[in-house]
Amino acid sequence: MKNFLLLFIFLNSMNTFSQIERVEPPNWWVGLQESELQIMVYGDNIGKATPELDYNGVEIENFTPADNLNYLFIDLNISENANPGSFALKFKMPDGKEYSYQYELKAREKKGEEFIGFDNTDAIYLITPDRFVNGDPSNDIDESLNEKTINRDDDYARHGGDIKGIIDHLDYIEDMGFTAIWSSPLLINDMKSASYHGYAMTDFYKVDPRFGSLEEYKELAEKAKERGIKIVMDQVANHIGIEHWWMKDLPFDDWINFQERYENEEEVIYSSHRRTTNQDIYASEADKKQMNDGWFVDSMPDLNQKNPFLAKYLIQNSIWWVETLGLGGIRQDTYPYPDKDFMSDWAGRIMKEYPNFNIVGEEWSNNPLLIRYWQDGVDNGYDSNLKSTMDFAMQTNVVQGLNEDENWDTGLIKIYDGLANDFAYASPEDIMIFPDNHDMSRIYTQLKEDIPNTKMALSYMSVLPRILQIYYGTEILMNDSAKPGDHGLIRTDFPGGWTGSKKNAFTGAGLTAAEKDMQSFVKNLLNFRKNSTAIHSGRTTHFAPQDGIYVISRIAGDETVVLILNKNKKMVSLDLNRFKELGLDGSTLRNVITGEKIQWDGMIELSSRGPYLFTSKLD
Amino acid sequence: MKNFLLLFIFLNSMNTFSQIERVEPPNWWVGLQESELQIMVYGDNIGKATPELDYNGVEIENFTPADNLNYLFIDLNISENANPGSFALKFKMPDGKEYSYQYELKAREKKGEEFIGFDNTDAIYLITPDRFVNGDPSNDIDESLNEKTINRDDDYARHGGDIKGIIDHLDYIEDMGFTAIWSSPLLINDMKSASYHGYAMTDFYKVDPRFGSLEEYKELAEKAKERGIKIVMDQVANHIGIEHWWMKDLPFDDWINFQERYENEEEVIYSSHRRTTNQDIYASEADKKQMNDGWFVDSMPDLNQKNPFLAKYLIQNSIWWVETLGLGGIRQDTYPYPDKDFMSDWAGRIMKEYPNFNIVGEEWSNNPLLIRYWQDGVDNGYDSNLKSTMDFAMQTNVVQGLNEDENWDTGLIKIYDGLANDFAYASPEDIMIFPDNHDMSRIYTQLKEDIPNTKMALSYMSVLPRILQIYYGTEILMNDSAKPGDHGLIRTDFPGGWTGSKKNAFTGAGLTAAEKDMQSFVKNLLNFRKNSTAIHSGRTTHFAPQDGIYVISRIAGDETVVLILNKNKKMVSLDLNRFKELGLDGSTLRNVITGEKIQWDGMIELSSRGPYLFTSKLD
Repeated sequence: MKNFLLLFIFLNSMNTFSQIERVEPPNWWVGLQESELQIMVYGDNIGKATPELDYNGVEIENFTPADNLNYLFIDLNISENANPGSFALKFKMPDGKEYSYQYELKAREKKGEEFIGFDNTDAIYLITPDRFVNGDPSNDIDESLNEKTINRDDDYARHGGDIKGIIDHLDYIEDMGFTAIWSSPLLINDMKSASYHGYAMTDFYKVDPRFGSLEEYKELAEKAKERGIKIVMDQVANHIGIEHWWMKDLPFDDWINFQERYENEEEVIYSSHRRTTNQDIYASEADKKQMNDGWFVDSMPDLNQKNPFLAKYLIQNSIWWVETLGLGGIRQDTYPYPDKDFMSDWAGRIMKEYPNFNIVGEEWSNNPLLIRYWQDGVDNGYDSNLKSTMDFAMQTNVVQGLNEDENWDTGLIKIYDGLANDFAYASPEDIMIFPDNHDMSRIYTQLKEDIPNTKMALSYMSVLPRILQIYYGTEILMNDSAKPGDHGLIRTDFPGGWTGSKKNAFTGAGLTAAEKDMQSFVKNLLNFRKNSTAIHSGRTTHFAPQDGIYVISRIAGDETVVLILNKNKKMVSLDLNRFKELGLDGSTLRNVITGEKIQWDGMIELSSRGPYLFTSKLD
Repeated sequence: MKNFLLLFIFLNSMNTFSQIERVEPPNWWVGLQESELQIMVYGDNIGKATPELDYNGVEIENFTPADNLNYLFIDLNISENANPGSFALKFKMPDGKEYSYQYELKAREKKGEEFIGFDNTDAIYLITPDRFVNGDPSNDIDESLNEKTINRDDDYARHGGDIKGIIDHLDYIEDMGFTAIWSSPLLINDMKSASYHGYAMTDFYKVDPRFGSLEEYKELAEKAKERGIKIVMDQVANHIGIEHWWMKDLPFDDWINFQERYENEEEVIYSSHRRTTNQDIYASEADKKQMNDGWFVDSMPDLNQKNPFLAKYLIQNSIWWVETLGLGGIRQDTYPYPDKDFMSDWAGRIMKEYPNFNIVGEEWSNNPLLIRYWQDGVDNGYDSNLKSTMDFAMQTNVVQGLNEDENWDTGLIKIYDGLANDFAYASPEDIMIFPDNHDMSRIYTQLKEDIPNTKMALSYMSVLPRILQIYYGTEILMNDSAKPGDHGLIRTDFPGGWTGSKKNAFTGAGLTAAEKDMQSFVKNLLNFRKNSTAIHSGRTTHFAPQDGIYVISRIAGDETVVLILNKNKKMVSLDLNRFKELGLDGSTLRNVITGEKIQWDGMIELSSRGPYLFTSKLD
């Protein structure tokens, strides 16, 4: 079968004439929920062609030349009875010439419902791939691309990390207790500078060769799957990099927003970034347009998802990657920036194909009303179809609450009151919490390099009814304290990821005692979380903070997990009488981090500031 | 007819034997939606009595002695066909004695739907009656009451203000443009100290004699109604004053919360004031109980509204006042503290009787999720029946936004983003906004005695789709700047309310130029608002603040109102091109405050910091 497929690929290239430069998606599958497929064909004057094909179960329903006649869009109907295989897509030109392209319909490797998305049983390791591990130094520089340098001393240059680096360290990721990997985008960013971050894509179907090949991306997905680790792909529907191949020859007059200004070399309009216009019933039309249609930055043209051909292109591209890699989820960048009706269609179509999948959308807001708005399942006049949103609000509450002194309305009460907002969410357990990510200061920096507070933040987030995401290196106290918020510093090279480094977080070599201790803490925490039904699906009960102590519990069946956050510097005794409803009186509990056993009876002594995480499961 | 009624009242007292000390409600009406009435009878061993009556259309359905046999609760059914009139309520004692009480059923003065509650066309004047005007010095001291002194030099003593003082100055209130009066409670607070504030009631059916009589309260209501001014009554269902007559002889063992501790002279449990337990799906049972059942303060026993007799008592008491005074609304104190299911029943019953009425509940929270939660019309598992909530969130946003410097996420953007949350409310226009109230610093103090900012706050709140409430004296820059937040200072005597004062805000005598200017500003603003359909029911459009300028408009039919908040100290030109969608280009507008006309065309110059309020109505 494999040879058979290779043969098709061979034939495929043989039959492609230079007039047909691109056909996207490059293949498709039989047996998807949606029988429609719209193919974008790019080539000199191909818009003048009449397409034809002859294959059982596949029909051309329509074809549309774009405003730019170098593009042709072909609508196929693929019957559920069509067999996997390939067929010649023929193009008859007005001058009588004919071109042919061999198009492949693959068999699906599994059914749509077998694509299981990340959920709140998962702990997701977020990786900036350029900065994690340089597994293949041979791909560091690609002379055919615009940015040809590698410079580890430059925070905004490429450093050489790649897919192979991740593959080679799946052991570490698994051992730490992570069950999913979200890597920043691995698709090509053929930009002139700062291409390392990945969010300025220049081809939606090509892996950046400096990260590796499509085959390596597939290998990562397969090897991760063998370990029960899900791969979450970072996608961007809002914008492209200015070096995207489209930008040299745009298909439609409205493919990007403010296209006329761009083509006339006028200054484009930038997004106001005033994202509340998406919900605001009083927002002016002018403000809405500027927010959604304005460009993110001048190197990233803003896509016009109201163009129906672009909308289909983006949706099919996402499905192509889910299917090709067997993804365990998508993280969609800058969620409030594209046309929101498109985002509803996009997420809706994916969730229709993969009902057990998951997508998390990035809305950077501390306003629970907005976090609520984007999540599917609330009756607010917008059918989001988005299962997961990001909890920037709780992230902020945790940091503020730990940094602040305890008073009536400051300190731990901020965290407690913040979690109380869960009543407003359709499904709090599908929301993602994180101590930090690639766009914000490291948690250790945010918490002013306070170890007990860092441990309290991590353990609290770990027991919440939430999906958990941790940024690579946070487990070894990586920080940007020298210049808080600096993107280069936040995305520091992971120690051990480059040869010649004395410090190696994989082996432990050169780590300070504090770094080792935190790594071990996180490993204990996540491995415990991985198997805790109480955390995965238990009932949550928390008690209003008093005297610098905040208690939260999760209970499922015979497993009770209790986390005590203690801000007191001196030893304190905690009267357990207030917590009677947890049903723990007289029982023995195990401290998850230290392994010690305690008796839950009368009083317990809290000798030091920090988290106390107990479980009723003694082994 | 009046003489006839007086005769009943006379007979009533004649037939009351000492065994029947109280019958509450003291009368009722025929023709209410709900035919049930539960009467509380208090008297020595009256719980042992069998009640009887003989009156067409009125039946005793049930009677229940309380735990304490000095109380008897009688359930009547009053048919819609019953005639107004009075009947003898007879009590047969086990020893054969009989007592009789003449009970009156009045005719209603108007139908339930004719009680029109305050709404967003109203501007409500909030008065602390002890501190507004001493209209009747003869009632200042009542030697039969616990607090027998008056001392205007003591911020927490009584100062002598009263109902007559309000009646005598309805002219001023009307001239200023107010259309409703919310006075802090006028019912008796026979407390030993600090009785002036009114929130520690000791009899739910009696006006505090130091404020005046029931007849004066009725006179206030009637005279206000003649001017189109609604009377909003401040009610308290959560607690009573410790000197309430019940406290000497409690009817049931569970009439108040933590009653056993109180009766055993143990320390009672105080409310945690952690109000999020009302919504929080994770709140512990212990925390919920402490929050709702705990006492507000030690001088205010917490009522147990889960006792069905107390629940009915409180509901009937509210209806009695609505009907007796022809109220235009109720403000319910400490809304999140009583049992919330009771509050739903309470508000539901009142709104059933008076479908066009209004009730506003006090939840002091800056969290829009909570403001949203309490308002009727959202699908959140709680049927609140409460039409109006208080917008502490926007109040805070306005103050912060004006006080702060302008930056990406500070300054006017806070106000703009705050208002954008309106999308989440069932009916934003039924929410009450206010620059200040009796529990917080005066707006002038909150805004650091900055006049342009104070004018911006007042004008912005005046044009919002909100019910507007302003605290007495704010119009003449009354402030607590000497000791911000001090309740005594916040509730300062209104100048002109006491004889001998050189300063008189009613006549203008002795006011500073700044005070006169603000008084005139507020008068212009409110009188404009009073007749502006655009403000009452117009579509709202606002534009994200830029360069220290925030523009909001209200449009209804041919009336457009535009408010520009300008923070720039130097003259700036505002390019009107961005506001094209308002449809004002080329039109003439009138500055509501100065009367000047301007052309809305190209640019307008904003010469000074402050609000610019324009209307398309030129006269």
